[in-house]
Amino acid sequence: MAKTKKAPRPKAVTPRGFRDYMGAEVTERTEMLGRIAEVYRLYGFDPLETSAVETVEALGKFLPDVDRPNEGVFAWEENSDWLALRYDLTAPLARVAAQYRNDLPSPYRRYAMGPVWRNEKPGPGRFRQFYQCDADTVGAPSVAADAEICGMLCEALEAAGIERGDYAVRINNRKVLNGVMEVAGILDPADPEAFGRERGIVLRAIDKLDRLGPEGVRLLLGGGRKDESGDFTKGAGLTDEQAAVVMGFVEAGLDRSDAGRAPAAVLARLRDLVGESAEGRAGVDELEHIAELLAAQGFGPDRATIDPSVVRGLGYYTGPVFEAELTFEITGEDGKPRQFGSVAGGGRYDDLVKRFTGQAVPATGISIGVDRLLAALHATGKTKGEADGPVVVTVMDRDRLPAYQAMASELRAAGIRAEVYLGNPKNFGNQLKYADKRGSPVAVIEGEEEAGRGVVQLKDLKLGAKIAASATLEEWKGQPAQREVPRADLVAELGRMLAAHDA
Amino acid sequence: MAKTKKAPRPKAVTPRGFRDYMGAEVTERTEMLGRIAEVYRLYGFDPLETSAVETVEALGKFLPDVDRPNEGVFAWEENSDWLALRYDLTAPLARVAAQYRNDLPSPYRRYAMGPVWRNEKPGPGRFRQFYQCDADTVGAPSVAADAEICGMLCEALEAAGIERGDYAVRINNRKVLNGVMEVAGILDPADPEAFGRERGIVLRAIDKLDRLGPEGVRLLLGGGRKDESGDFTKGAGLTDEQAAVVMGFVEAGLDRSDAGRAPAAVLARLRDLVGESAEGRAGVDELEHIAELLAAQGFGPDRATIDPSVVRGLGYYTGPVFEAELTFEITGEDGKPRQFGSVAGGGRYDDLVKRFTGQAVPATGISIGVDRLLAALHATGKTKGEADGPVVVTVMDRDRLPAYQAMASELRAAGIRAEVYLGNPKNFGNQLKYADKRGSPVAVIEGEEEAGRGVVQLKDLKLGAKIAASATLEEWKGQPAQREVPRADLVAELGRMLAAHDA
Repeated sequence: MAKTKKAPRPKAVTPRGFRDYMGAEVTERTEMLGRIAEVYRLYGFDPLETSAVETVEALGKFLPDVDRPNEGVFAWEENSDWLALRYDLTAPLARVAAQYRNDLPSPYRRYAMGPVWRNEKPGPGRFRQFYQCDADTVGAPSVAADAEICGMLCEALEAAGIERGDYAVRINNRKVLNGVMEVAGILDPADPEAFGRERGIVLRAIDKLDRLGPEGVRLLLGGGRKDESGDFTKGAGLTDEQAAVVMGFVEAGLDRSDAGRAPAAVLARLRDLVGESAEGRAGVDELEHIAELLAAQGFGPDRATIDPSVVRGLGYYTGPVFEAELTFEITGEDGKPRQFGSVAGGGRYDDLVKRFTGQAVPATGISIGVDRLLAALHATGKTKGEADGPVVVTVMDRDRLPAYQAMASELRAAGIRAEVYLGNPKNFGNQLKYADKRGSPVAVIEGEEEAGRGVVQLKDLKLGAKIAASATLEEWKGQPAQREVPRADLVAELGRMLAAHDA
Repeated sequence: MAKTKKAPRPKAVTPRGFRDYMGAEVTERTEMLGRIAEVYRLYGFDPLETSAVETVEALGKFLPDVDRPNEGVFAWEENSDWLALRYDLTAPLARVAAQYRNDLPSPYRRYAMGPVWRNEKPGPGRFRQFYQCDADTVGAPSVAADAEICGMLCEALEAAGIERGDYAVRINNRKVLNGVMEVAGILDPADPEAFGRERGIVLRAIDKLDRLGPEGVRLLLGGGRKDESGDFTKGAGLTDEQAAVVMGFVEAGLDRSDAGRAPAAVLARLRDLVGESAEGRAGVDELEHIAELLAAQGFGPDRATIDPSVVRGLGYYTGPVFEAELTFEITGEDGKPRQFGSVAGGGRYDDLVKRFTGQAVPATGISIGVDRLLAALHATGKTKGEADGPVVVTVMDRDRLPAYQAMASELRAAGIRAEVYLGNPKNFGNQLKYADKRGSPVAVIEGEEEAGRGVVQLKDLKLGAKIAASATLEEWKGQPAQREVPRADLVAELGRMLAAHDA
């Protein structure tokens, strides 16, 4: 049967919002995650790798409506069930903690590293698949578990390459805020459901402190706030007195002086704010205990601190809340210096397994933003970004291919990355262009004449890079970056050249 | 608003055909892939990590029909496009090679490791998400690239932990089979389309040699074959003479004597079979060149051999075909010893990028079956399967938690995996059960009394494991596996105990 019509060619493109990672982008992440995993392992955490696919039912929060689940996840129907790609690593942990609850040790310390998927509108630097790196402890009610996670986070950041002094792990507590709300009269321990609407608005307002500033938050506690576009957001309707109590908490973190940030001073300020609230006092006690445990393990205020300025996530977590910020400055997109900002966050959440089993199980954990942390390592020059390519053994004489392969083998056996040029060897200039594109540090050249004399030419491409693209072999041989060495000394001489590059 | 009705609880289950990996299952795979990646890197291969999601158009072969793509992939509609999870690592490589063809070095050597997804009926040991570990060279027409891949495969298997002598990389060539078909009169170089139906049946029959044996293949070359269930498969309809030629090829690999497997003998036998066929002769020349290149790099017949018994994949690949088999025996499910079998396969395929660009690009590569290779390491005892858990510092006195955390910190600083028990410490027996479940080698015990005397108790759980589940603290203290050491010597003494375990 003759083909009468050709199908149009498919487009070679990544789907919208997805990307490919190549070379050093892959190895740097792998290495960084390996170093972090080693810290987690030392702390007794065990790896867990769930599959990318979960039932929509187990993921929760995303339920099929008319014909497909809400936005947010990538989902598809299978028989009459819906399956979806996980959107984080916590939902699968909840499923696992419930599914294997009789077999897992309790407490269960686990870490997980891997991609997650979000069916969101992609934007610059915003992808629909990205890596997360989480560590959680399930089944430990004591804040000793929170302190452990915070200390481990310090060590993980240092293992990744962030120097002490360049980061700060900051710890706050939702219970303290609850105590403040009790004092403000919008939380009644005897009737926990009352004032739910007001508290919701207060929590959302506090969560926006970074963006709106104290003035914006204050407006949302009262009558409401009109944004730049003129849209009006209704406020919680607190009286000035009530709002002042809540603002006391919001502003407790704003005293950034050394004295103001001393643990004893912070705890005293918080104790003052929660007054007689039992929950608030318990929250301050927890923070005090966390500070004590961290100090006992050598995590001083230069690494982890109690800090009421951490407000992000207070609406989501139920106890201690943590954040890791990088404190060095980078140049922002506007050309102005700014702090690098947050690279990890977490806290205590006690409803993890309850959806499945009906039984409350305490849990606490952190999630490190892998791409942001990698970006930070680039910003501080801690990763080279581009690793050296392999030594390229060029092909001057096609018949000597076995001899060239033997050279590459010898180099590899000495731990030197090496390959023989396997494109069409006819045009020697193309071989040099190839070596250049690979970022090869050195090219090995051995024609018939050299073979006859028992020597090889070693061309230092790092020195000679500029001329490589256009040079003919003859000019090229004249460059000072090229050396002739006995064939028998190939490995030793090449090793010396590479060591000189690294020096 | 009072809740009147509770939603039913979601089921905590992995979707059908998916599974979770925990603890050593994760770390062993990570370590094995790390060792293989190091070999690939030494050979000049660069990592590539594409996203899990591709357009169905780019994946090819799976096209939307009425409302959703054919079975085989997990796919979903987005706007009017279809997206799908990748089903292997080769299709994304084809897309990448086309998409970045102006920027990638040529030849492009890349490796990729990661999960792939198949929307197939799951079965015992058959999952819908599994790992692949591939290495391919795109743009190298010479069989030197095939030889390189085969040598690298040997080194990768050895790096993974398979000893020399326990595996065999075997190499055959589709061109030789084409030569044989030419001799048999079912391939006409002047009219390549003719006899397409016959050749298709012949290729499929040969691919089934393992399962059907030579007799079964012979039937399919002729009139046809009735299977055990009575179903009849129509044959290629070759004459006895034609079938004898093809069977000569099929049986060329069956002489397993040392003399029969010597490279020179195999090549002579194949040269004889392809007669005057130009393609057949080219195929034998290629195999000879591969053998020569492998020998030059130190890959003798104890590691890689030319072997006409490799028939799997001959219908798919266009030139050299490779397979790595593990040659040691394991006990099969039927209780009988059998060879472990194949763990990797690959070959040359030259239409990789053509679908996208219209331009033929030569490519060759291998894919290692990660789960099978891990199973092989377990079968040979090369991996422990279960790694030791952390040292558990027990909690005898809740007020001394900071002191316990400090102990754990000291142990970690010495590289010893350690954690403090963070469950409810009231029942000491539960702490011991927990340590047992974790596979802890040693528990550290320090009550008020010990603290007063400046000592700690070290309980060797490997020795004492049996009694741990039921013992009370008092009986437990009397066990010979328990030692009292000065608190100051904790790290040194514990290090000694662990070293004794490993000895």
